[in-house]
Amino acid sequence: MVELASASIAELGAALRAGRVRAADLVAQAAENRDESLGAYKLWLPERAGAAASLADAAFAEGLDFGALQGLPVSVKDLYGLSGTPTHAGAPRPLPAAWEREGPVVRAVRSGMACIVGKTHTVEFAFGGIGSNPHWGTPRNPWSRDVHRVPGGSSSGAGVSLWEGTAVVALGSDTAGSVRVPASYTGTVGLKTTYGRWSLAGIVPLSSSLDTAGTLTRSVADAALAFPVIDPRCTAPPEAADLSRLRLGVVEELFEGCAPDVAKAVRGAIRELEGKGATIVRYALPELAAVREIFAAGGLAAPEFRAFIHRELPDFLATLDPGARDRFIPVESLAASEYLDRRARLARLADEANAGLAEVDGIVSPTTPITAPRLDEVADADGYRSRNMASLHNTMPGNLLDFCGLTIPVGLDGDGMPIGFQIMAARGTDERLLSTGLAVERILGTARERLGTPPG
Amino acid sequence: MVELASASIAELGAALRAGRVRAADLVAQAAENRDESLGAYKLWLPERAGAAASLADAAFAEGLDFGALQGLPVSVKDLYGLSGTPTHAGAPRPLPAAWEREGPVVRAVRSGMACIVGKTHTVEFAFGGIGSNPHWGTPRNPWSRDVHRVPGGSSSGAGVSLWEGTAVVALGSDTAGSVRVPASYTGTVGLKTTYGRWSLAGIVPLSSSLDTAGTLTRSVADAALAFPVIDPRCTAPPEAADLSRLRLGVVEELFEGCAPDVAKAVRGAIRELEGKGATIVRYALPELAAVREIFAAGGLAAPEFRAFIHRELPDFLATLDPGARDRFIPVESLAASEYLDRRARLARLADEANAGLAEVDGIVSPTTPITAPRLDEVADADGYRSRNMASLHNTMPGNLLDFCGLTIPVGLDGDGMPIGFQIMAARGTDERLLSTGLAVERILGTARERLGTPPG
Repeated sequence: MVELASASIAELGAALRAGRVRAADLVAQAAENRDESLGAYKLWLPERAGAAASLADAAFAEGLDFGALQGLPVSVKDLYGLSGTPTHAGAPRPLPAAWEREGPVVRAVRSGMACIVGKTHTVEFAFGGIGSNPHWGTPRNPWSRDVHRVPGGSSSGAGVSLWEGTAVVALGSDTAGSVRVPASYTGTVGLKTTYGRWSLAGIVPLSSSLDTAGTLTRSVADAALAFPVIDPRCTAPPEAADLSRLRLGVVEELFEGCAPDVAKAVRGAIRELEGKGATIVRYALPELAAVREIFAAGGLAAPEFRAFIHRELPDFLATLDPGARDRFIPVESLAASEYLDRRARLARLADEANAGLAEVDGIVSPTTPITAPRLDEVADADGYRSRNMASLHNTMPGNLLDFCGLTIPVGLDGDGMPIGFQIMAARGTDERLLSTGLAVERILGTARERLGTPPG
Repeated sequence: MVELASASIAELGAALRAGRVRAADLVAQAAENRDESLGAYKLWLPERAGAAASLADAAFAEGLDFGALQGLPVSVKDLYGLSGTPTHAGAPRPLPAAWEREGPVVRAVRSGMACIVGKTHTVEFAFGGIGSNPHWGTPRNPWSRDVHRVPGGSSSGAGVSLWEGTAVVALGSDTAGSVRVPASYTGTVGLKTTYGRWSLAGIVPLSSSLDTAGTLTRSVADAALAFPVIDPRCTAPPEAADLSRLRLGVVEELFEGCAPDVAKAVRGAIRELEGKGATIVRYALPELAAVREIFAAGGLAAPEFRAFIHRELPDFLATLDPGARDRFIPVESLAASEYLDRRARLARLADEANAGLAEVDGIVSPTTPITAPRLDEVADADGYRSRNMASLHNTMPGNLLDFCGLTIPVGLDGDGMPIGFQIMAARGTDERLLSTGLAVERILGTARERLGTPPG
């Protein structure tokens, strides 16, 4: 029988359509695979998943096809509203019921007859890239059985759910790296869509100017199959680009300060791609310095989140992770004019950066300059702050410069922790980015092929 | 020969296509019609218009049809970039050359083979509804030959250009009423499009959250013909709705404080429509109080304009109309969080208000509670302030609540000054709004039919 924990979406779909497995079997496998010691889920929903599986099986029996996710287990970050379930968004208490309302992304997954198995943990209000949560605990990175290493955040349970074998697609969200960082840290594929492409309705906002919904999957091939199910415009899965026509720009500044193993693995992957025919060029991203300066001063997320929580959820301020609250300090006295200047500067930087990207199919770099830290390394404020900034260092330019982005696992470091290879592309070119990623994956192999599986 | 000063776009187009008149003749008529004493234009461009006319005529000779505006004179508010001409935006000196760049609206008009005859005056940076300009003088309202009455603003030359007979479409922009107020004050039709529907690129911003491009025309029929030329989605001119199926909501709060003649004319028009079969209902707009409070505190335009000019055009601060600068005072110390709260409150109010509008085809009211003031009445700060607020009182809710809006002339007051009838409709329903307006115009008649012409 086909294994939920290891099969691709294509294999699972073929097995379902051939009657070799039922959606109900897959949901049962998910329940068996679930490893509570990893702590991926805030809320596990076996009955709901079972009901969805019955419906999917009934549709298969009628010969009705709802697309690539029909009958497949999907996990949803607990920042998304899911009717009839509380949304905690990582906070210690459930948010008001209005936040349970489902938006278009969850609706698309449900109308596509996927089986939502549960809500995965998130950093509190998605405000952090490490994946830790003082209220609900921090999911364990499956690549480190003995030492508790963080899974990356803020979509902290998403990547874990994929390796654990409880889901084939994990819905996440990315404001500065919150899809790509956990994907990189857990050896999965993360897609950060272009801002505005997928509706943010029904998702608790962190930064209304930067939030994006996205997916974590076990391969680019899976991401490409899931994409048209969720995307309102895409009608068929993107296909692999011709590698010999790909032109990838290496951004040297994004290698600065990288852990040696990370730089080595990513440079190795780039050489492999070049060896197989891709054109590799050096690529300057002169907007980086200004973007980093704005980000260091709180960017847009800190003032927008601060205003949001004071306005909409003032009762949740007192229990907010002090580490998160500290990040409000630089923006406490931010003037409206300064905020508007930031927006205007970023809009201009993004226009310039996107215009430049017409020259290449994507720019490549390590997704994160470090690999997943140990939980004890982020226990104190300084350790947390430096590693949080490092985690987001290479991903946040994708948000602030309005790119779409993809991370693909390319290796393990000396501690056996996954290393991500990031491809960022011009806004609106999400499908082409997936085509590029498919071509890359054909050469480098999937995570399972290249990295193996987490130590069991 | 067909008269540019009085003919409709349909009549002019028919004459051009039948070879009864050439575009070159119309441009020559425009030059003859031009009345410099009215002061509609900041920049008059006869050679450019002549060249465009030659091209339009050559296209007609080849049987090539570029749409309803081919060969017709159009005026452009001097807030829009127009390649090769300075953009003053009402300031005493030209803005940097980047502001000369043409955006999609001007490009659409030019690709539609219209003949741009000149750039019309605007209130300095469009920040005011009266139409006065301390640097370049205030265009005269054509309905008051002896006493200088204001034309309304900020698109202050737009309506004047239409009656003068130099243009059949005047491009304007509307952030709080800057298309509808001058249209109301000059007895023309003003269309404020839905925010985001027409690109703002190539237009000097006042409020990036609220600015909209729009048209002034002599009739709704003309507006409907111009619409598909400019609109990126509309493929054919909207047609008149069936009046007997129209449901119009009367917002009583928008009659409060109205000049008696204004209220009388608008109520009379509503009765006429009801008499001819339209369904008239009372309509509550409970969001008005909150919107007015936010507007009185500077809304979004004051902080956004203040930040813009400090950032992009600091050299233009010293010469800025002190009346405009005064309106920065309440927002000098506005915090980013307070600004974001305003945006969030307005977004929610707009969602509620737009949801409510599903019940009716439009809500109706006087466009402005007063008619065009005398220039001497707005000479001092208090006179200006009170009449500026009155001018925008009924239009600004359309911007802050994210409606589209149309004003149609329905009468003259005791001083012979035009009175406008405003129809506002749900965001995105611009075409339906024009259909509604066409049905209304069929009953009430065009300005020329109902009001006559300005005293010669």
